[in-house]
Amino acid sequence: MQNIITFYISLINESLKKRDKKKTPINLYEPITYTLNLGGKRIRPALLMLANNLFGGKDEVAIDSALAIEVFHNFTLLHDDIMDEAPLRRGHPSVYKKWNTNVAILSGDVMLMQSIQLLSKNNHANLHSVLDIFNTAAIQVCEGQQLDMDFEKLSTVSIDDYLNMIELKTAVLLAASLKIGAVISETSAVNAHHIYEFGKNLGIAFQLMDDILDLYGDPNKVGKRIGGDVIVNKKTYLLLKAQELATGKTARDLEFCLSSTVLEDNTKVEKVTSIFNELNIKKLAMDEMNLFYNTAISHLDSIEANADKKLVFEQFAKGLMNRES
Amino acid sequence: MQNIITFYISLINESLKKRDKKKTPINLYEPITYTLNLGGKRIRPALLMLANNLFGGKDEVAIDSALAIEVFHNFTLLHDDIMDEAPLRRGHPSVYKKWNTNVAILSGDVMLMQSIQLLSKNNHANLHSVLDIFNTAAIQVCEGQQLDMDFEKLSTVSIDDYLNMIELKTAVLLAASLKIGAVISETSAVNAHHIYEFGKNLGIAFQLMDDILDLYGDPNKVGKRIGGDVIVNKKTYLLLKAQELATGKTARDLEFCLSSTVLEDNTKVEKVTSIFNELNIKKLAMDEMNLFYNTAISHLDSIEANADKKLVFEQFAKGLMNRES
Repeated sequence: MQNIITFYISLINESLKKRDKKKTPINLYEPITYTLNLGGKRIRPALLMLANNLFGGKDEVAIDSALAIEVFHNFTLLHDDIMDEAPLRRGHPSVYKKWNTNVAILSGDVMLMQSIQLLSKNNHANLHSVLDIFNTAAIQVCEGQQLDMDFEKLSTVSIDDYLNMIELKTAVLLAASLKIGAVISETSAVNAHHIYEFGKNLGIAFQLMDDILDLYGDPNKVGKRIGGDVIVNKKTYLLLKAQELATGKTARDLEFCLSSTVLEDNTKVEKVTSIFNELNIKKLAMDEMNLFYNTAISHLDSIEANADKKLVFEQFAKGLMNRES
Repeated sequence: MQNIITFYISLINESLKKRDKKKTPINLYEPITYTLNLGGKRIRPALLMLANNLFGGKDEVAIDSALAIEVFHNFTLLHDDIMDEAPLRRGHPSVYKKWNTNVAILSGDVMLMQSIQLLSKNNHANLHSVLDIFNTAAIQVCEGQQLDMDFEKLSTVSIDDYLNMIELKTAVLLAASLKIGAVISETSAVNAHHIYEFGKNLGIAFQLMDDILDLYGDPNKVGKRIGGDVIVNKKTYLLLKAQELATGKTARDLEFCLSSTVLEDNTKVEKVTSIFNELNIKKLAMDEMNLFYNTAISHLDSIEANADKKLVFEQFAKGLMNRES
C-alpha cells in the first residue's frame, strides 16, 4: 500500500535531478543545486501527487506543482537557517555557513521565484485557484516563522497562540500541498476542503509528536539528544502546558530550572521531566495530539473517493504518529 | 501629454494606500507599510498602466498587476539593502537598519509573495503569460544583483558583461512592466515584443545616463556628491571604458588612482576626470547611451497603436534622457 508513496518520492527525486539547471551566475545557482541535493523526505510533494492521484488526476499534470512545493520548502530552509543561525542542515553546512548570508538570501529568493515558475508552468484549468492556495499558504508560513521568532522574546505563550503558530509554520504547507493536488485533479470543492483539513490537522499532530519525542522518545531512535528542547528552554507544547498548570512550589521549581545559569544540562532535563511527570504533561500532550489526529481522520473519512486509495492516506498518517523519531 | 502619467502615478499611490493591510504579526507587516510609504517614483507600475491603456486595455484589469510590480520592486530594495549594506533608502533608514536583518529578510519574502498574489488576483485571459513574463524578469533581476556583487571582486569587467549586468539588474523589470501591460490589454504578440524591447533599451540607456551624471551632472541638481562612484571605484561604464582604452602612462595613472590609499577624494576625482577627458570617455558613453536610446525609439515606432498615445511614451523617454539628476 505504501508503495505508491515510495513511487512518488522516487519520481520527485528523479524530476529534481532532471530539472533545468541554469549554470550562471554560478554563485547564485550552485547553492540551489547543493540544497536540493541534500535530500529530505519529500513528503509534501509526494502528498500532492497522491492527492491528485486519489481523485483520478494525471501525474504529468501535477508533477511541476509538486516540484514547486519542494523548491518552496527548501527556500524557507535557506532563509530560516540565516534567521535561526542554524549552522547545519541535514548534517551538512547550511548555505549561509558554507557560502555567506548574501548568497543564502539571494539564492533563496530565486528558489521562491522558481517555485512560482514551476507552479505556473502548466497552464491547466485551475491555475488561478492553485496560485491562490499556494500564495495564501506561503504568506502564512512567513507569519508562522515571525511568530516563532516573536515567541522567543516572551516569557510565556498561551497554548492557543502556540497551536496557531505551528499551524502556520508547519501545517498549512502540508495542507496546501494536498489541496493543490486535489484542485489540479478537478475534484469537488468539498473534497478539496476535506483534504486540506486532513493535512492541516495531521500537520499539527505531527508537530506535537515532535515536541513529545524530544523528551519521551527512545534515545536510540530519536537520533538527537533527549531533552534538547528543555535544555534551550524551547517553548514547546510540553513546557507551555506545564507553565499553564504549575502552581505554588511546582511553578517556582519550573521557573528556577528555566532561569538558572548553574544547573547542568542533565540535571535540568531530569528536574524538568519530573515536574512534567507530576503535572501529567505527557498524557495531556498525547491527548491534544490525538484530538488533532482524529480530526484529521474524520476529514479523510468525509472525502468521497476510492476506499483503497484513501487507506493509503490513513496508513501514512498512522505511520507519522507511530514513529519513534 | 504627460498628464496621463501623473494620473497613473496618483492612481498607484492611492491604490497602495488602500491595499489590504494585515496587521499581525506586526513585526512582519509594519516594515512593509513603512517601505511602501517611503515613496518612490512609481515609474514601473505607471508604465504598465500606460502600456495597457495604449492598446485599449481597461485600468481596472491592469491595476493589481501594476501594484504587483511596485511591491516586487520594493522587495528587491529590502534585500538589496542588506546585501549592499546600505543604511539609507530614500533618505530614511533602510529596513535592516531600522529593524534588523531577519526582519528585512522575512518582510521582503512576504512582499515577494504579495506581489505574486496581486499579479494573480485578477483571473484574466492572459494570466499564464503574465506570470511567465514576471517570473522570467524576477529571476533575471536576481541574476543581475548577483553579477553586480561578483563584479565587485574582479579587478575589471568587460563592457559587454557590464551591459549584460545592467540589462538584468535594471532594464528587464522596466521592459517586463510594459510587456505585462500590453499582454493584459490583449494586443498582438508583435506589439508586446516591441514594447518590451523599447523598455529594455530605454532602461539600459537610463542606467548609462546615471553613470554619466555621477561625474558630469550639475552638482546643484544631481543631489549627491559629484564623483561618488569614482571615489569608491565603482565599476561604471565610464571606468570600465577607460580601463579598456587606457595604455602606457595613462593606464598606470588610472591604476594608481584606483589603488592608492593616500589620495584625497577631491584629488582622486580630479585626476580620474582628467584621465576620462583625455580618453574622451564622456562622449563615448553618450554615444553608447544614444545607441540604446535610438534602438528604444525604433521599437516604439514599430508599435501599431494610436500615434498621440505613442507620443506620450516618446516624451517620457526623452524626459528620462534629458534629466539633470
